[in-house]
Amino acid sequence: MLRSAFSVITKILPVRTAKAHCDGPCGVYDPASARVAAEAVLSMTKKLLAMEPPQNSDPIAWATYNNTFSRYVAIKEEQAKEAKQELLILWTDYFKPEHLSTYPDLHDTFWKAAKLCSACKVNIDQAKAEELMQAVEKIHYMFWNSKGRADNWITAS
Amino acid sequence: MLRSAFSVITKILPVRTAKAHCDGPCGVYDPASARVAAEAVLSMTKKLLAMEPPQNSDPIAWATYNNTFSRYVAIKEEQAKEAKQELLILWTDYFKPEHLSTYPDLHDTFWKAAKLCSACKVNIDQAKAEELMQAVEKIHYMFWNSKGRADNWITAS
Amino acid sequence: MLRSAFSVITKILPVRTAKAHCDGPCGVYDPASARVAAEAVLSMTKKLLAMEPPQNSDPIAWATYNNTFSRYVAIKEEQAKEAKQELLILWTDYFKPEHLSTYPDLHDTFWKAAKLCSACKVNIDQAKAEELMQAVEKIHYMFWNSKGRADNWITAS
Amino acid sequence: MLRSAFSVITKILPVRTAKAHCDGPCGVYDPASARVAAEAVLSMTKKLLAMEPPQNSDPIAWATYNNTFSRYVAIKEEQAKEAKQELLILWTDYFKPEHLSTYPDLHDTFWKAAKLCSACKVNIDQAKAEELMQAVEKIHYMFWNSKGRADNWITAS
Amino acid sequence: MLRSAFSVITKILPVRTAKAHCDGPCGVYDPASARVAAEAVLSMTKKLLAMEPPQNSDPIAWATYNNTFSRYVAIKEEQAKEAKQELLILWTDYFKPEHLSTYPDLHDTFWKAAKLCSACKVNIDQAKAEELMQAVEKIHYMFWNSKGRADNWITAS
Amino acid sequence: MLRSAFSVITKILPVRTAKAHCDGPCGVYDPASARVAAEAVLSMTKKLLAMEPPQNSDPIAWATYNNTFSRYVAIKEEQAKEAKQELLILWTDYFKPEHLSTYPDLHDTFWKAAKLCSACKVNIDQAKAEELMQAVEKIHYMFWNSKGRADNWITAS
Repeated sequence: MLRSAFSVITKILPVRTAKAHCDGPCGVYDPASARVAAEAVLSMTKKLLAMEPPQNSDPIAWATYNNTFSRYVAIKEEQAKEAKQELLILWTDYFKPEHLSTYPDLHDTFWKAAKLCSACKVNIDQAKAEELMQAVEKIHYMFWNSKGRADNWITAS
Repeated sequence: MLRSAFSVITKILPVRTAKAHCDGPCGVYDPASARVAAEAVLSMTKKLLAMEPPQNSDPIAWATYNNTFSRYVAIKEEQAKEAKQELLILWTDYFKPEHLSTYPDLHDTFWKAAKLCSACKVNIDQAKAEELMQAVEKIHYMFWNSKGRADNWITAS
Repeated sequence: MLRSAFSVITKILPVRTAKAHCDGPCGVYDPASARVAAEAVLSMTKKLLAMEPPQNSDPIAWATYNNTFSRYVAIKEEQAKEAKQELLILWTDYFKPEHLSTYPDLHDTFWKAAKLCSACKVNIDQAKAEELMQAVEKIHYMFWNSKGRADNWITAS
Repeated sequence: MLRSAFSVITKILPVRTAKAHCDGPCGVYDPASARVAAEAVLSMTKKLLAMEPPQNSDPIAWATYNNTFSRYVAIKEEQAKEAKQELLILWTDYFKPEHLSTYPDLHDTFWKAAKLCSACKVNIDQAKAEELMQAVEKIHYMFWNSKGRADNWITAS
Repeated sequence: MLRSAFSVITKILPVRTAKAHCDGPCGVYDPASARVAAEAVLSMTKKLLAMEPPQNSDPIAWATYNNTFSRYVAIKEEQAKEAKQELLILWTDYFKPEHLSTYPDLHDTFWKAAKLCSACKVNIDQAKAEELMQAVEKIHYMFWNSKGRADNWITAS
Repeated sequence: MLRSAFSVITKILPVRTAKAHCDGPCGVYDPASARVAAEAVLSMTKKLLAMEPPQNSDPIAWATYNNTFSRYVAIKEEQAKEAKQELLILWTDYFKPEHLSTYPDLHDTFWKAAKLCSACKVNIDQAKAEELMQAVEKIHYMFWNSKGRADNWITAS
């Protein structure tokens, strides 16, 4: 950059704000990301509930059980965090003040959905995991409706 | 574990929910984490506004300027994300429905603070960065007040 | 765990393998995750190509331009990595040897798709970004076909 | 950038170093970040020590216990890593050679603190977790003292 | 940048592709990174197989055992993911179409190696962990051979 | 676990410490990880110094240059952080107090190496990047010597 007037300009103008013409991180928004994570939470929850500890003292069987149980809890944790993160991106970055008149319960819907993600971490709770799926579905329709689209709610599993 | 009645139990009882006795991830909550990140956002914003491109064509000077500018933008981005994340942890994990009567503007306060984090990413805007500091300060007092404490708002820089 | 025969068992049996009954990380697979990231790559590529540097020496305008350009390149980079990661999860974790007869070009399809992700990072190339979308679409149909489903290819943007 | 002499310059001058005018990543330093993580390590350690396995064979009770135990260990691990990282940032980025005369035991103080973070991961050890809090407190006073400030050591929990 | 003809240029030329002169992320490739992670997977697998649960009901002994078991499973998981990631970087970023004639089984070699990483996560399987080491060794020789070097396969442990 | 005396035990014994029999995170240590990252820092530094901005106003050429410059700075940053992290793992986790007599300058060696990582981030400085390679080499020999091995220092590039 060759700007001969630069040093003059910096002293005259209060150089306090440099505004971009684009708002937001310009990503593409899609509740599908939150949905996939929520499906994984429900899947891991069911697998954990279905696990049967060994009937005997076989050390190999116990090591296997513990290895699997540990991993499932960790994956459930990670997917619940992912779901929460994806939902919050929609709340903070996609939805704007002008949406509040159409969706007056916007904040509460997202707050509850986020708290369901926590509940699924803290417990192995299939009812909560199913509630989370319903919360994401509600948000899915709210989102597409705000864009004038009626995309169906389709799950992968 | 030796549980001889296990196989009987699993068939009789509907094994749908395993509830923990502890709620939440049991971390320690402190708005200091969000404050430190917000201070960094303001610091990087000021440094970016203070940068002067080289007056001449010196390639070394230009490479330096570009290296520094790039890095400052990246650090500002990272700290703004960190601030947003830390604030949202307080909103989703710390505050509970019973807090809504004492802090009726809870959701809106956090929503605005999160949107200020975005604004600081998208622009190099000292006014917004200072507004973010004020938003975090408001949340600081809301948080400690809810715990019956009056910790002072003290910044590191 | 009370296992009185434990110490005996460990010395008699070669304790070399503890096998789990479940295969894979048991996540839920959906090409939607790769699609969303690829859409973001294309979106950022278009925005970058549309950016106009300031016509003058205005330092604020230049700081804004550089801040935005930097951020867009970083988001394009991050989304291209995300797309590659999501595609590779499908290749390594979902597809199995038995799929090779139905999809003999499986490896090459994924290799090319991954290399398109790299090309989109290295260049600001709308043609490559559109090729990446087509690669993900091909994988979308391959994936759902392997599950006996015919889910439509629907994009968010 | 319009630099007509560029190609000449690059061939004449050995273009080996492009120096920035600013040193360090320019973040804001505050031992509060390490403190919060250390508090979480102590908190998780106490919760783990307080956990009581079920008295019976109830599979739900056992799944709950294992889910919670797993999660607490993972959070303790993550917070211990966070504490170590934050402490090391202060050691490598904030403290400079000129500080060694005032704080001759600087290196050893940080080395021991980092090793306490490891000890808290490897064991469920309340004594070590409390020692870690004391190590962070010592560093807190060393840090603020080096800045000519006397900020109090205040914990969130 | 002072470019007076800018606005004219953008309207005349189809501004669709901005090509860089460098291909790839320009990192340095070395199978050592995958080797170190695979060594850790084998190490953790052996430690897990060597663990002996307490012979009695001592709660402290049980908490210790569970803390250690959990951590080892988590480290095994993390290292297996790391090994997979490092291997896939070589496959997608280093190897090119021109390598296929010399290494016709390239894709299958990497696919199998990635699936071995998964197997080591899902099971505590020393045979699979040793197979993974052999897979990484095969790739080590394929890689260095493609560069006209004959670096020895040397392990850290 | 069936432990009928559990409730009695917890009240009699001060249940404060659950000690593991294994020390450290049990990973495999190898300075190769730090070496690969340091090689990448040097590589990116050289590429950045070799970049030539376009001679003209061509917007495509400028977008390409900026995209590449940005990416190289980001990769240099990431690799410098990686190098620092890998070095610090050796300092905090591998080296023990008993090593201080053999390597009295241990702390200072690592402190300087970490500060070189920072210098390579802050500047585009080939001399510092080469110094970093030498620091890692010194640590390589210190490490293998402490294990009674004499592994050669071999670089990938």
